[in-house]
Amino acid sequence: MLTVDEALQLVGQHAAQLAPIRIRLRDALGLVLADEVTSDVDSPPYNKAMMDGFAVVASDRSPTRTIIESIMAGDVPRRPIRPGTTARVMTGAPLPDGATAVVPVEQTELVDDRTVRLEWIDPPPGKHIMPQGLSMSSGQCIAAAGRRIDSITMAVLAEAGAAVLSVVPRPTVSVLTTGNELVSVDERPAAGQIRNSNGPLLTSALCEGDYAPSVLPSGRDELDELVELAQQGLEADVLLVTGGVSAGVKDLVPAALAQAGVQQVFHKVALKPGKPLWFGIVPREHGPPRLVFGLPGNPVSGFVCFHLFVIPALAVLAGRADSVVLRLSKGTSMGEFAYGGGREMFRPAYVDAQQRVEIFPWHGSADLAGMVRANCLVRLSETGVELAAGDRLEYVRLPGINPGK
Amino acid sequence: MLTVDEALQLVGQHAAQLAPIRIRLRDALGLVLADEVTSDVDSPPYNKAMMDGFAVVASDRSPTRTIIESIMAGDVPRRPIRPGTTARVMTGAPLPDGATAVVPVEQTELVDDRTVRLEWIDPPPGKHIMPQGLSMSSGQCIAAAGRRIDSITMAVLAEAGAAVLSVVPRPTVSVLTTGNELVSVDERPAAGQIRNSNGPLLTSALCEGDYAPSVLPSGRDELDELVELAQQGLEADVLLVTGGVSAGVKDLVPAALAQAGVQQVFHKVALKPGKPLWFGIVPREHGPPRLVFGLPGNPVSGFVCFHLFVIPALAVLAGRADSVVLRLSKGTSMGEFAYGGGREMFRPAYVDAQQRVEIFPWHGSADLAGMVRANCLVRLSETGVELAAGDRLEYVRLPGINPGK
Repeated sequence: MLTVDEALQLVGQHAAQLAPIRIRLRDALGLVLADEVTSDVDSPPYNKAMMDGFAVVASDRSPTRTIIESIMAGDVPRRPIRPGTTARVMTGAPLPDGATAVVPVEQTELVDDRTVRLEWIDPPPGKHIMPQGLSMSSGQCIAAAGRRIDSITMAVLAEAGAAVLSVVPRPTVSVLTTGNELVSVDERPAAGQIRNSNGPLLTSALCEGDYAPSVLPSGRDELDELVELAQQGLEADVLLVTGGVSAGVKDLVPAALAQAGVQQVFHKVALKPGKPLWFGIVPREHGPPRLVFGLPGNPVSGFVCFHLFVIPALAVLAGRADSVVLRLSKGTSMGEFAYGGGREMFRPAYVDAQQRVEIFPWHGSADLAGMVRANCLVRLSETGVELAAGDRLEYVRLPGINPGK
Repeated sequence: MLTVDEALQLVGQHAAQLAPIRIRLRDALGLVLADEVTSDVDSPPYNKAMMDGFAVVASDRSPTRTIIESIMAGDVPRRPIRPGTTARVMTGAPLPDGATAVVPVEQTELVDDRTVRLEWIDPPPGKHIMPQGLSMSSGQCIAAAGRRIDSITMAVLAEAGAAVLSVVPRPTVSVLTTGNELVSVDERPAAGQIRNSNGPLLTSALCEGDYAPSVLPSGRDELDELVELAQQGLEADVLLVTGGVSAGVKDLVPAALAQAGVQQVFHKVALKPGKPLWFGIVPREHGPPRLVFGLPGNPVSGFVCFHLFVIPALAVLAGRADSVVLRLSKGTSMGEFAYGGGREMFRPAYVDAQQRVEIFPWHGSADLAGMVRANCLVRLSETGVELAAGDRLEYVRLPGINPGK
């Protein structure tokens, strides 16, 4: 059976950044720049007053000055400042020619409408002035290709006039849950039935990862129905199917996916929980292939596979990462814990701000309710592990998960 | 002038959790539960097979068994298992009465359609079975009031039948930028003009905090226009206004807000950058007052005030926090840095996974482009600070900000 690392490598061979698209800046939050962006303006665009006050010639020592105009942000100064004169300036206003410092209004006193007395007559040159182009200059690269657009970058791009951008699109992801036993949250399960938790789990986890899921109707264990739903799901860049990938006679998902044109890459990974994981692709003429993950129907197993395989693959499609790898963090164990080994295990646990990891009691892969305290998955080696308090360990963080209040 | 702590306390006196609403589970991601939720089902709802295999009486040692039925998830077993008989079971299937263990299919061999030979004849009782109700039982509290609904909680709530929930709503937030100098990202700034970066900055930062902003048209520095826009903005729980709060003659925002019915709570805080911060309220008959923040027009100053005051206030309204406080984290300085003091400063910086903080070169509050590397704000005392490499410091993390790739 493939190891987790071998399976990740196989996924990595088929996951590639999506072809760039051009979009408006307002739609770009969270996306990755496909090209570098240069500014078309200086910032500030002029020597700018950083305080409300009076624009002066710094070397002028006269205690009173004649006020020749008032300038606020948005105005254009009309007259230069010379010794003996001043202009009232508001924060953000452009400085008139000749002005080399700003005396804050708090350090001045109005004598009359046209005259001000300065309590501070020797401001150093440049005081309370931001020189033109200091923050960014026209033609300068202000954001490199590969940068993810967060709020600060968004503001800088707006200032720089990047109204339309070339970005890596957000991959589209379809979610198809399968199983005769599933009923919706609105329904009362009859004997043998359970409510569908995989749908809400995966769509929410996709939202937490800043991906936009589309949800297909839950599929029954009938080949024709599954083929049709899979075909619909394959309109997306990535299709997630849950259930029907174990060795049971009714595990029709691999057959349905094959019939829908999906080429199997692997089935089963030496992973606990999550062994039945299935992975395939649909080549496309342009761009990277569509990826299809057949996740175990057990919600915990599917969730572990989602965070170990799907999230790293989506990060590559979205341009957020260069390769499909686990982002392992290092922490220490809060207490004792033993794992007998067998398959490599990723066990739900809680990590605090000091990277201390608590491996809390949990009833195994069917215990979804027992996972609500988890915000990470601790890696436990297939050769077995005996942890003492303070021992080093590695874990994968679950992004977007906020245990407790 | 108020200190940052005093100003936070004043905001805290007016910020309170919004009144709960009832919504459907699918709309609840990221919201906080107003009431505890109990399950209406056992999970698993039956003794459940955890492997594909054969359900047996654990104490039965006969090497071959007669297959009396096949059971998959969603089925209801019809016949009890007795010594000498077995039922084929798929992962997730309910176990028939009498069955006390599952022998995995890999450890069996079919003799004919009705007979199976077991390679493992003495499984311990309970092997590969999840007992009914082990994960959660009917009537049990599965999520406490105050829990924020993440993907795992969402899945547990779905399984438990919580189709409609009582939650704290997401506060609504209006964003009103003001200033004659502002043009949109699509426009070429004329002399004296700059592009509006505050709008994209604050709306994006609200999205990063999982709040949903609504954006008003940018307001010119005209009292009547500002009053009208402020009144529109006051339909939201929180109104953010940028610009027009300095001491300049054209700083009309406090006057416009007063005319729109906002009661000033404070104006100016001993904070760098961010001194002009203005805060007021509009009492409501039911529920906590609407909050109004007049943020400095300088984008960096406004952004600092947003993360120090607005985000903690929104967290209280949304039920994510009990009080309006800074979430300070501890780290160490990567290099030397000196701050001469004056006002308490929150300076943009970069913190890595090991809590090491780099205070990088930055041209002050008008240098928005110089902030793109920031993912935190380092607190520097008003009495001045001299940091050496390795010295301890405190910082506020900027949630949602992902510097670099």
